[in-house]
Amino acid sequence: MIETAAKLRAALDESAYDWLALGSKTHIGYSTGYRSVAGDLFESHRMLVLMSGDQTFVVGGASDGAAAFEAGISAETYIPFGTFYFESVGGEAPESQLTGRHESFQEAVTDAMSRANIAGRVGFDAGASDLAPAISSVGAEPLDATDWMYDRRAVKLPEEVERLRVAARLAEQGIDAAIETAGAGISELELAKAVATTMAAGGGFPRFTVVTSGPRSAFSDARPTNRVLRQGDLVRFDVGCTFEGYWSDIGRTAVVGEPNHLVASRYAAILAGEEAQLQTVRPGISAEHLFDVAVSAVEDSGLIPYRRQHCGHAIGTEVYERPVVAPAWPTVLESGMVFCFETPYYEIGWGGMMVEDALVVTADGADMLTVSDRSLRVIEP
Amino acid sequence: MIETAAKLRAALDESAYDWLALGSKTHIGYSTGYRSVAGDLFESHRMLVLMSGDQTFVVGGASDGAAAFEAGISAETYIPFGTFYFESVGGEAPESQLTGRHESFQEAVTDAMSRANIAGRVGFDAGASDLAPAISSVGAEPLDATDWMYDRRAVKLPEEVERLRVAARLAEQGIDAAIETAGAGISELELAKAVATTMAAGGGFPRFTVVTSGPRSAFSDARPTNRVLRQGDLVRFDVGCTFEGYWSDIGRTAVVGEPNHLVASRYAAILAGEEAQLQTVRPGISAEHLFDVAVSAVEDSGLIPYRRQHCGHAIGTEVYERPVVAPAWPTVLESGMVFCFETPYYEIGWGGMMVEDALVVTADGADMLTVSDRSLRVIEP
Repeated sequence: MIETAAKLRAALDESAYDWLALGSKTHIGYSTGYRSVAGDLFESHRMLVLMSGDQTFVVGGASDGAAAFEAGISAETYIPFGTFYFESVGGEAPESQLTGRHESFQEAVTDAMSRANIAGRVGFDAGASDLAPAISSVGAEPLDATDWMYDRRAVKLPEEVERLRVAARLAEQGIDAAIETAGAGISELELAKAVATTMAAGGGFPRFTVVTSGPRSAFSDARPTNRVLRQGDLVRFDVGCTFEGYWSDIGRTAVVGEPNHLVASRYAAILAGEEAQLQTVRPGISAEHLFDVAVSAVEDSGLIPYRRQHCGHAIGTEVYERPVVAPAWPTVLESGMVFCFETPYYEIGWGGMMVEDALVVTADGADMLTVSDRSLRVIEP
Repeated sequence: MIETAAKLRAALDESAYDWLALGSKTHIGYSTGYRSVAGDLFESHRMLVLMSGDQTFVVGGASDGAAAFEAGISAETYIPFGTFYFESVGGEAPESQLTGRHESFQEAVTDAMSRANIAGRVGFDAGASDLAPAISSVGAEPLDATDWMYDRRAVKLPEEVERLRVAARLAEQGIDAAIETAGAGISELELAKAVATTMAAGGGFPRFTVVTSGPRSAFSDARPTNRVLRQGDLVRFDVGCTFEGYWSDIGRTAVVGEPNHLVASRYAAILAGEEAQLQTVRPGISAEHLFDVAVSAVEDSGLIPYRRQHCGHAIGTEVYERPVVAPAWPTVLESGMVFCFETPYYEIGWGGMMVEDALVVTADGADMLTVSDRSLRVIEP
């Protein structure tokens, strides 16, 4: 049994739930170790995991069978739906017996609930919320376990931290590679390609490569364009990839030529905000306190007012996980939680800048997953 | 106005609908030209487009505002929700006036429906289906327009075909690069990295890199592993990327060393199936007929029985679009439709093979988007 599944089962044993009914893609990966390729491609792709203290049943497409069995899901407890033909000599391989067993996902779910004989309190997630009536119809009690599931995932296992570290390193290596090739006349798109190529060469899947320059650097979450760098431009990088399903989300800022006073002082302020978080973070601190620490430090450094809805977020198999480093998040940090801290600033007509890093909370503070230079980078024009 | 939006508006004028209410991400891109970066990252990300014959209103997050305005959505018709701070001198830029206007998506939707004064027949898509009660509540008639929307998108505009061509070329260039580096002792993961790096260097986002070898080549949709190539292995590539939001999905098969008779004859059979489709495709042919053509040609070439649920699919801003090349798809092909044709074969305990290509239907047949060698590739051991 994979580590995350074992951890989840142990938590289930001590929970208010007798069963879990999980339909969200990342929870299915967490509870089985199986990440469906088709699940990455099709919004409508569905699976269901029914897990109790000692049993697991999985509903999945016939086409997912071979890869799911290889990932450790047993053929005996896999309830397939749909049509897909794996052949085998004499039709003896279990993979070749998956097709046409159930016409629809819903029909397979009914069979799975019957075989599992689910009863008692059944915690479902957002991806299985439409199955609450089916849970009720077999006499069990459906309860929304979405938050409970995310809370279970908040503390990462060492194997998870290592994947997050690889993803974070690939992101910052991508930025470093782009800055090395940057100069006046180079376009945002060329820089974004350098980021993505570096990520891919390291085994990551590029997921977002926000490289914006000049006035566009103020446009949060804008795609790179053919705009070419000019002397004095700010260049804002906000990029991420996945490595074995685990995300990164890393930010850096560069300037073409030596920064003027306003650019230098504003960057110093946002860096002071992130730095204050990094100095403060440790188990026992609340997420909302870290937000206050960041905002105060930025404003104390002269960028006033500094208005943000958050200054960071947990990260894992989703790019934003719980807790968020924001007001009204009293969640107390624990050793093993992984965060991105960030202090961006966006001013329309002037530009935008950010610094964002990943770290794992440790017993006495934090271990940085990123290692690259966090200062304002200067690109030779 | 972007080309796809203009085409959609023209279709709307001749349709049974007075308004469209679009919430699915790819329909939002089609109807506005704006593809949200956050929409790529967060399953829960929401927007709504309300479109009539002469008006468009867009509901979107405050954080999407700057990028949305740059993409051509007007600030006057953008109804924002949530909290996000763009600063501007004197607070005069419209981007700096987006925050806190509406607390929730639902609240912004109510405002948008009121401002648009929607009435009559309102076609909604799958991403807006939960808004049907809200549409009814203002006295309009909600109608499911999901199929209608996909049918409108089936014929691609020249700009769309060119993006699909780039995506397809990047996929086959990725496969070619991987085959060039392949040999005994090279792992599936190393080959997958070569595929992804080539895609990224060309400006694509790698989306799936299924590279499976030996017995694993029979595992449809399995992820690449550390398994290293050995003499006699089949190596199956099924890979795709997106370029400016448009997908590719391309397949090739290689063998390590000269193929034995069974491998060679089976590959010849599946290639004959795809070849028969390519010889037959033209406007006026039905999708289900093309399926029959493929299956018959494979079986006539000696691979019996050849069982498949489909032998291809339309492709666009989603990897599978309508029509599917499958039984019960009487849809008649039109010039400008873009398809992937494929004839894979999976046998547990033996291996898997496939060939898959992309093409656009033209007045007298098809124009291939892929140009690389479709034969069984031989890797020097």
